[in-house]
Amino acid sequence: MSAEQSGITDGIRLLFQRPNEPLFTVKDNGKTVFELPSNFYTERYETIGASLSTRIGEDVEKTIHLRPIQQLNLDFTKSIQLRGSFSLFIKSHQVIAGELIKIFLDSSEEDFISTAAFIKDRVNPYLFLYSLATAVQHRNDTQNLSLPSIVQQFPDQFVDSSVFPRAREEGSLVPAESRIPIEIKMNFTASDREPEQRLAYFREDIGVNMHHWHWHLVYPGEGPLNVVNKDRRGELFYYMHSQLVARYNNERFCNHLESVKPLNNFRERIKEGYFPKIVRSLNNRAYPARPDNAQLQDLHRDDDNTEIADLERWRDRIHQAIDQGYVVEQGTNQHIPLDETNGINILGNVLEASAISPNRQLYGNLHNLGHNVIAYVHDPDGTHLEDYGVMADVTTAMRDPVFYRWHAFINSICVKFKNTLRSYQPNELLFEGVAVNSVDVQITTQSKSTIPNLLLTYWQKSDVDLGAGLDFGPGNVYAQFTHLQHAPFEYRINITNDASVPKQGTCRIFLIPKFDERGEALRFREQRSFAVEMDKFVINLNPGANEIRRRSEQSSVTIPYERSFRRIGSEYQPKNGEELAQFQFCGCGWPQHMLLPKGTPAGTKYDIFVMVSSYEHDRVDQVLDSGVLCNDSFSFCGLRNKKYPDARPMGYPFDKNSQFNNLDIGSLTEFTEHLTNATLGECSIRFTDAVIDRV
Amino acid sequence: MSAEQSGITDGIRLLFQRPNEPLFTVKDNGKTVFELPSNFYTERYETIGASLSTRIGEDVEKTIHLRPIQQLNLDFTKSIQLRGSFSLFIKSHQVIAGELIKIFLDSSEEDFISTAAFIKDRVNPYLFLYSLATAVQHRNDTQNLSLPSIVQQFPDQFVDSSVFPRAREEGSLVPAESRIPIEIKMNFTASDREPEQRLAYFREDIGVNMHHWHWHLVYPGEGPLNVVNKDRRGELFYYMHSQLVARYNNERFCNHLESVKPLNNFRERIKEGYFPKIVRSLNNRAYPARPDNAQLQDLHRDDDNTEIADLERWRDRIHQAIDQGYVVEQGTNQHIPLDETNGINILGNVLEASAISPNRQLYGNLHNLGHNVIAYVHDPDGTHLEDYGVMADVTTAMRDPVFYRWHAFINSICVKFKNTLRSYQPNELLFEGVAVNSVDVQITTQSKSTIPNLLLTYWQKSDVDLGAGLDFGPGNVYAQFTHLQHAPFEYRINITNDASVPKQGTCRIFLIPKFDERGEALRFREQRSFAVEMDKFVINLNPGANEIRRRSEQSSVTIPYERSFRRIGSEYQPKNGEELAQFQFCGCGWPQHMLLPKGTPAGTKYDIFVMVSSYEHDRVDQVLDSGVLCNDSFSFCGLRNKKYPDARPMGYPFDKNSQFNNLDIGSLTEFTEHLTNATLGECSIRFTDAVIDRV
Repeated sequence: MSAEQSGITDGIRLLFQRPNEPLFTVKDNGKTVFELPSNFYTERYETIGASLSTRIGEDVEKTIHLRPIQQLNLDFTKSIQLRGSFSLFIKSHQVIAGELIKIFLDSSEEDFISTAAFIKDRVNPYLFLYSLATAVQHRNDTQNLSLPSIVQQFPDQFVDSSVFPRAREEGSLVPAESRIPIEIKMNFTASDREPEQRLAYFREDIGVNMHHWHWHLVYPGEGPLNVVNKDRRGELFYYMHSQLVARYNNERFCNHLESVKPLNNFRERIKEGYFPKIVRSLNNRAYPARPDNAQLQDLHRDDDNTEIADLERWRDRIHQAIDQGYVVEQGTNQHIPLDETNGINILGNVLEASAISPNRQLYGNLHNLGHNVIAYVHDPDGTHLEDYGVMADVTTAMRDPVFYRWHAFINSICVKFKNTLRSYQPNELLFEGVAVNSVDVQITTQSKSTIPNLLLTYWQKSDVDLGAGLDFGPGNVYAQFTHLQHAPFEYRINITNDASVPKQGTCRIFLIPKFDERGEALRFREQRSFAVEMDKFVINLNPGANEIRRRSEQSSVTIPYERSFRRIGSEYQPKNGEELAQFQFCGCGWPQHMLLPKGTPAGTKYDIFVMVSSYEHDRVDQVLDSGVLCNDSFSFCGLRNKKYPDARPMGYPFDKNSQFNNLDIGSLTEFTEHLTNATLGECSIRFTDAVIDRV
Repeated sequence: MSAEQSGITDGIRLLFQRPNEPLFTVKDNGKTVFELPSNFYTERYETIGASLSTRIGEDVEKTIHLRPIQQLNLDFTKSIQLRGSFSLFIKSHQVIAGELIKIFLDSSEEDFISTAAFIKDRVNPYLFLYSLATAVQHRNDTQNLSLPSIVQQFPDQFVDSSVFPRAREEGSLVPAESRIPIEIKMNFTASDREPEQRLAYFREDIGVNMHHWHWHLVYPGEGPLNVVNKDRRGELFYYMHSQLVARYNNERFCNHLESVKPLNNFRERIKEGYFPKIVRSLNNRAYPARPDNAQLQDLHRDDDNTEIADLERWRDRIHQAIDQGYVVEQGTNQHIPLDETNGINILGNVLEASAISPNRQLYGNLHNLGHNVIAYVHDPDGTHLEDYGVMADVTTAMRDPVFYRWHAFINSICVKFKNTLRSYQPNELLFEGVAVNSVDVQITTQSKSTIPNLLLTYWQKSDVDLGAGLDFGPGNVYAQFTHLQHAPFEYRINITNDASVPKQGTCRIFLIPKFDERGEALRFREQRSFAVEMDKFVINLNPGANEIRRRSEQSSVTIPYERSFRRIGSEYQPKNGEELAQFQFCGCGWPQHMLLPKGTPAGTKYDIFVMVSSYEHDRVDQVLDSGVLCNDSFSFCGLRNKKYPDARPMGYPFDKNSQFNNLDIGSLTEFTEHLTNATLGECSIRFTDAVIDRV
């Protein structure tokens, strides 16, 4: 029985609306209300409950009756305050979420909505929605349910806090039909005196941060084993974050900044301060700032005791494991080789460290606790009763310049490991009989310049609904923010199949910077590390010449613009169906509007590397259900509940060295020359510093 | 024509309600509305204005018609953002406020409300209310107008920001008659791991911070000369702040902390961090925190360029002036002696520095810019677009431990000056024929212990209305906070007048600690600096024995509890008249509930020093209008538009040394023995760590 048939859809969807308002308040802009069994009211509303719901529900069109269930004992959640914070980086929070997920998973189909509804007002809203969303994903009767995006639920985590009072004024005084969106200024966190501010459009992009939240929702480090132990999750942890760093470095070059410096010395002051200026609407507390030149300190907090020396020991032991070629398994003390096949996946799990790390006693919890040590730098022992900074929250961590320094460090360990592997040999790279002759990119918008191999970027405005951030507020009020955008384009790839029969290949497209921030040519080793995956797709090659056209919107890296944002000028109050279609739950994926680096007004030159490998060697045998949603961004996110659909190492062919004739490759050109099945194109990305409307 | 007669009262009063909501919204909980000339609407509401006010004003009982006035050019206010901050410590803000005050003062009686109403939504609300309040105080037709207190207007500046979302829930869901106040926890800014946190009940007391705001409203450092140049304002600046420091030090001893260390080395890190956890509701931005061990930096901001070296130069030049005995007048280069009569007043103006400082070029702006340098320590050059911390805002500065370190430093300069003056001689201290024989204190509450000379302190809860902090919110919602309180008591003083005729005297009462935080006996020099003025009043002495009884509530230092707070259990929606009576504008004065130091559970011993001086030498000749409100807290605040009503140096007889027979006094006992017109009592203050209801 599907979710639609069982009637679960509507109930669950409403539980995701306005998470800070109690269950008995009207939902769907006043149209729907839950009818609650009396034991569902929380203590404050117990005695006045019935009168409240009657009073408020006067204009409702629809009532959802909740099946009575027994009182549930939720004492185990009490250490996460109702209006406090919830972080996947805090161990005790993870454990509580795990128990809650189990309750949701174990609930019968009949009782599921009632169970969720009973729990809703009794636990922290972030905890509730994270756990419920995870369960919805993993229950058979709900896994295709569409739910509103995180930014719809907690807009306060994504935008400048100062818009909310303005939005409340607009919403309170102006009738819905006359409301205009509140403008969110760019560059609200720092002035241009701060060089790092040049990257704010990237770090503070709503879509970028939504992606990061969703990724960690799909790949939790803790929880039931079947939730954590996904195919190649450790490798994907490495690869997705390594691509984030690569993309960030490309943006830095466009902004005349050197590539990000790995934070590998934990005793050195962090020169980049960050003042997030976002306020959690649940408790009206600002995310704490980190001043310039902060010095990491040992953590001595109730929920986290980590010494800097712990991080150093874990770092050094992981280095040792790489240099020795194996990790030691907890309990058995067996040596698990860090080999070609599984090494990077094991290393990813060790680094993060997820529940499937082979030895958390020995290798510790480097990535997570590094996030925490940084996030608590302003109050390492809790003396000042301050919560964590943005770095300990997956919805906000990518806003902070130090995120990229930390992940550059984590990535450097993975790169070190990859360098211990033997180089790719010709037979692992070539695709006999297939020649990729050329690649060009071309803007597809009629009204834009159509000079070949010239891509265009500019600013665009989009709207996001702040309604849920305005508790007990005036319904939908939109904020308008400015983000990077590019003119849609397509790749035109000419390929010859010398065979007389059709062949299947995997086409891989990378964008690779030619020059660093000073205009110096990059070496191949550097280019490999800065190569940005743009797309990956299976193609059918007919005998003879083939022209492959592939649109930028089809990218296997990105999710469509419409999945996150409302277009300006669209209906202000989407009908339920529309809302469902637009705001899919499956928000994991790089935002389409950030597909290209910003470029420069004069144009920044890139190599476009296209390689077609034999699908024979890439294929992963599994049954794919074409009806399943959100398989459009598998490069970073995989496929839901399936194996990663590419058998090659992630990042192939740039994840490690290559050799021809036992000689290392010296340049990208040389590399491509060796490969008949690959080609290099050149394009320029030209940035226009103006807001251009979406057509 | 009085304000009541002219009808100004109601209009102006309503302009102080819910300062963040536009003029056209209903006031008085929906009962009153302004009828606006069309040019009064701001740009956003111009076109939809008429419909809005009609729509919103359906249930109003009363309409106030505003006289049309011409458009006013308010461009001069533009540098203070509509939803930004406003600080009396920032020079450009002071200048803008000065111009606005002038507009309000120059406005005719007929146009005053309209002028204020036109301006209201066009300038920053803090700027508007400060300027309007100042004008209201100084206009003949409004100076006795009663206006709501600052905490009614901007509750967000005074309480833990996390109460507002809870209050919005309560107000939105619960009918007014069933609402319960939101509890504000004590000790929300730090844990007890931070020793300074022991003083949070003092620093974060709502009444204490209200007093500080009002004091600076009554004694602005900038503005029209007739507003700034009040009688002995420089001396009162010294004395009021010196008493704040003395009171703070007494509280520190009770909490086993040493007296506050003056911040006289601007190059030394400030070890006391402060994380205010309050959020400005106007723009939803938190007051920035100062981490532990912050290092003061040169300011390079648009509105303030101050080097640490500037502060050092000013400090050293002021020291030089004291050591040379004169200040140099700007322009004339004349020497103005720092003498007995005017020295401390001049020095106070030099230090602050107010507009009547004799030479701001030479002696700079030490006090104000010290506040600013500290307040911007997290972002000294504005790189991070951060606003000032609590130290640059008179509503919030006293929350921060560093406030007391800064004022201990400022005070140390005044003490140094006082030590250059010749000591008091017997003829300046004695009162021939009057003998003060004894003083006892006695609790007056029937239900309390009535052991003589035992005073009791405890916690008490009070309510404050958060309504104005919930823009477009649900009306009155109260927060309940816990503050120090004491059982009311009275002084019983036995005095003999040896003359055969009645005499008038000034009775001065000080509370003086006997021991420091370690239990070491304090020396006389120290006791002088820690002496806390409790009361000062004129008495008539009949020939022979007199028993003077004086109640603690009558203190010349304090304002009544009811002027600031609502008693728990009183009506939730005060009628207009009650509101007016309760929340007088004249909120300057130490809060009555903080009259006594906290004491300790075992009891802390104090000396009570009572001295009666001859009123002949104290009297200030002026006509006092007994109908004028708020003359009950003149010790710290003076009398409105009158001379300070005590001719003696403020702090007399403890402001400087005393000599008898050309010998310095060695102890408080010895001092009192020399003075027949003074006596020492001893009392103990016993603290009970429990909340006790007000009876």
